[in-house]
Amino acid sequence: MSPEEFRKAGHQVVDWLADYLADPSKYPVLSRNRPGQLIDALPSSAPETGEAWSTIFADFERLIIPAVTHWNHPGFMAYFPTTSSPPGILGEMLAAGLNTNGILWKSSPAVTELEQVSLGWLRQWIGLPDEWFGIIFDTASTGTMHALAAARQFAAPEVRATGQSVPLTVYCSEQAHSSVEKGALAIGIGQSNVRKIPTDCVFRMDPAALERAIEEDVRAGKKPIAIVPTVGTTATASIDPVRACRAIADRYGAWLHVDLAYAGSAAILPEYRWLMDGVELADSMVTNPHKWLITPVDLSATYTRRPEVFRAAFSLVPEYLRTAEDPRALNYMEYGVPLGRRFRSLKLWFILRTYGRERLAAFIRDQIAWAQELAKQIEEHPNFEIAAPQAFSLICLRYKGSDDENRAILDRVNSTGEIFLSHAALNGRYVIRIAIGNLGTGRRHVQRAWELIRHAAGVR
Amino acid sequence: MSPEEFRKAGHQVVDWLADYLADPSKYPVLSRNRPGQLIDALPSSAPETGEAWSTIFADFERLIIPAVTHWNHPGFMAYFPTTSSPPGILGEMLAAGLNTNGILWKSSPAVTELEQVSLGWLRQWIGLPDEWFGIIFDTASTGTMHALAAARQFAAPEVRATGQSVPLTVYCSEQAHSSVEKGALAIGIGQSNVRKIPTDCVFRMDPAALERAIEEDVRAGKKPIAIVPTVGTTATASIDPVRACRAIADRYGAWLHVDLAYAGSAAILPEYRWLMDGVELADSMVTNPHKWLITPVDLSATYTRRPEVFRAAFSLVPEYLRTAEDPRALNYMEYGVPLGRRFRSLKLWFILRTYGRERLAAFIRDQIAWAQELAKQIEEHPNFEIAAPQAFSLICLRYKGSDDENRAILDRVNSTGEIFLSHAALNGRYVIRIAIGNLGTGRRHVQRAWELIRHAAGVR
Repeated sequence: MSPEEFRKAGHQVVDWLADYLADPSKYPVLSRNRPGQLIDALPSSAPETGEAWSTIFADFERLIIPAVTHWNHPGFMAYFPTTSSPPGILGEMLAAGLNTNGILWKSSPAVTELEQVSLGWLRQWIGLPDEWFGIIFDTASTGTMHALAAARQFAAPEVRATGQSVPLTVYCSEQAHSSVEKGALAIGIGQSNVRKIPTDCVFRMDPAALERAIEEDVRAGKKPIAIVPTVGTTATASIDPVRACRAIADRYGAWLHVDLAYAGSAAILPEYRWLMDGVELADSMVTNPHKWLITPVDLSATYTRRPEVFRAAFSLVPEYLRTAEDPRALNYMEYGVPLGRRFRSLKLWFILRTYGRERLAAFIRDQIAWAQELAKQIEEHPNFEIAAPQAFSLICLRYKGSDDENRAILDRVNSTGEIFLSHAALNGRYVIRIAIGNLGTGRRHVQRAWELIRHAAGVR
Repeated sequence: MSPEEFRKAGHQVVDWLADYLADPSKYPVLSRNRPGQLIDALPSSAPETGEAWSTIFADFERLIIPAVTHWNHPGFMAYFPTTSSPPGILGEMLAAGLNTNGILWKSSPAVTELEQVSLGWLRQWIGLPDEWFGIIFDTASTGTMHALAAARQFAAPEVRATGQSVPLTVYCSEQAHSSVEKGALAIGIGQSNVRKIPTDCVFRMDPAALERAIEEDVRAGKKPIAIVPTVGTTATASIDPVRACRAIADRYGAWLHVDLAYAGSAAILPEYRWLMDGVELADSMVTNPHKWLITPVDLSATYTRRPEVFRAAFSLVPEYLRTAEDPRALNYMEYGVPLGRRFRSLKLWFILRTYGRERLAAFIRDQIAWAQELAKQIEEHPNFEIAAPQAFSLICLRYKGSDDENRAILDRVNSTGEIFLSHAALNGRYVIRIAIGNLGTGRRHVQRAWELIRHAAGVR
């Protein structure tokens, strides 16, 4: 494909995307494919000789699109929405075209320095002090795994040279995201050394239970390396007591990593800045612009006030990558596992500039308001109840009936193709989650979700 | 930015990219920026209110482009080139626009199934048996880290539950990529438990030395978990004896992971299929379509014939991600750390179809021929020598002089802006590397590199 053929195909793709972005709701939000349907529709081998772009693009529309669940659909309210945005797409287009790879500062100064600049801008917006250092990873799971490795370097530095010998322990609440446990597994902590601390009646980690668990582990000869509170848990967006965790971490020499993957973006609103209270005292945190800051996947931001500990955990500079030293020439590869480094910061830089803080804050503020309005409607309805305190743009609700009835309601709503919701288990009961976060979602879509839920339950 | 504003900006970006791809050599290959220059040129804070796209794009051209090292430049022959291609860019455009996220099969059947299909196609091309299972990670470093975690699950399955207690060991050659050591550090093996086995006179791991090292570790109460031979090492593209490593791994119950990050792509040529000899007996391998298969970063393919071991190492399915089971609905999150999953396979599918095997093979075949031609010229030159057996599209050479003279030659070549080369250390001596792999590189660029090297050395 020549540059001129690319020009033609590129214009076609831009037109297709512009039409798509204008109305993603022309598709069902949830793909209606059966498992294996796309695999069965595609040839079992790649072609020996090349095919025309027109043929390939026709297959994209005919076979791929029906297999897509549309995260851009305004009715996407499952999990935490991850929405695209025009400047984000433009950033990815240019990043893919330049294809510059920041394995070292020298191999692409732009990749390194724009990552420093754009994560610095975001850091200011969410109110972290200037000395916090930012790193982009693909996902929050990867960021948290790196933070746990840094925690081990901080609390048990001998492991880097000799490997783990005494049991190390990690603490999070029973509402924490599975990525904490998975990161601990990956770095060799062992599942039984990840303590899931009980939560209170509104799903916040109980600091007294945390301290008891740590005491017990220390008495058993184990070494606590990290406490991982969450601000905005996955199931209910509850907020763990970060300051209390900090005090406990200090008493035992442990690292404090805060999971703000979803809720961190709300800190760009002055009226939500409180959610960062105590985070400035943590050792690291993670937040996902690719969740609530309309950044296409993937872009997760890990921040730390101890970059030297990440570097001590991961730096290994072989001769063939050694370059003349300049204190301003940062080599991000020294701070984590990946060596290759895509130009991810470009899309974030475009987004922060295109919208500015005010527009992005207004977008989040509106969604929180629609969630609050809906929560009030649910509370006032005789057949439904709020299943956890409404927080941020998330609502957990239950039909006042059995788990099976709630499950059936969810299935009926999702089968409409208009709205896609997910679920959670709280106190052993099945609850329906509505998470608002899509650039295209408006008040009417939230109200429509409510209408479909009531309809699925057979009530007005 | 509305869909119509996106349409306008998108067309502008496509035109810019088409012009860029037509002639990336209008820019110096290596950025001439000083460290910190881009940071100093950008505002210290993000804007409160949005800015016009025209302003942002003007800054992209004025400030970002000069900070870019152009991996698309035909004179880029450093490290291993990572080149973009038109269908790869189109794939990234659509992936960013759809922004569909394969956290589960259900959350995007297309992401999951096209990954299965496109990695299956590539698996056939390189001659791996059908039962090998493919997973995309961002980089080979991440893939190798996962393979080492699978190796631990295989050889020391108790670690998953209780954490590491006895010392575990990993083996690679002294020429292995630093990612093996880094992956081992990340999973908690400890640097002193990564054995770098000596190599022979042509930089291949010595199997007798490997076996002695393992014996010694076993006698010391350590448990060998993985041997990691490389086919196509970073410094010289040398090839470790995979079959001998397999036999040794079997004797000690260790996992065999083969690093084919660079050279694996050459296996799509029938006359290079031999490089896979013995790999079919390994437990896992990694190869990077984003190196030599003109796929924009990032897309690294990890293959394993033991997917159940990866799953046993990483699966953790929390209630809120639990979906009705269907044997054909694969959830990739169970096979690794990341939960979020970008639609990376789309670009690979576009590339495999646009070029077909023959065109991609011809592209690699030409580059190998140009490298062989150049190696002969170097051998015949009185002032230069080949520093390692020429292999694939890589040449290691030395000016017959001091390390400082060689370093000065490299610096002079790189300062031209026409060609970018990197270096390595072999037997304690500084050598210049020429790695050919860019879609735009032709025979004349390779010959031009040779001309500039001779000119920099002051010889004809």
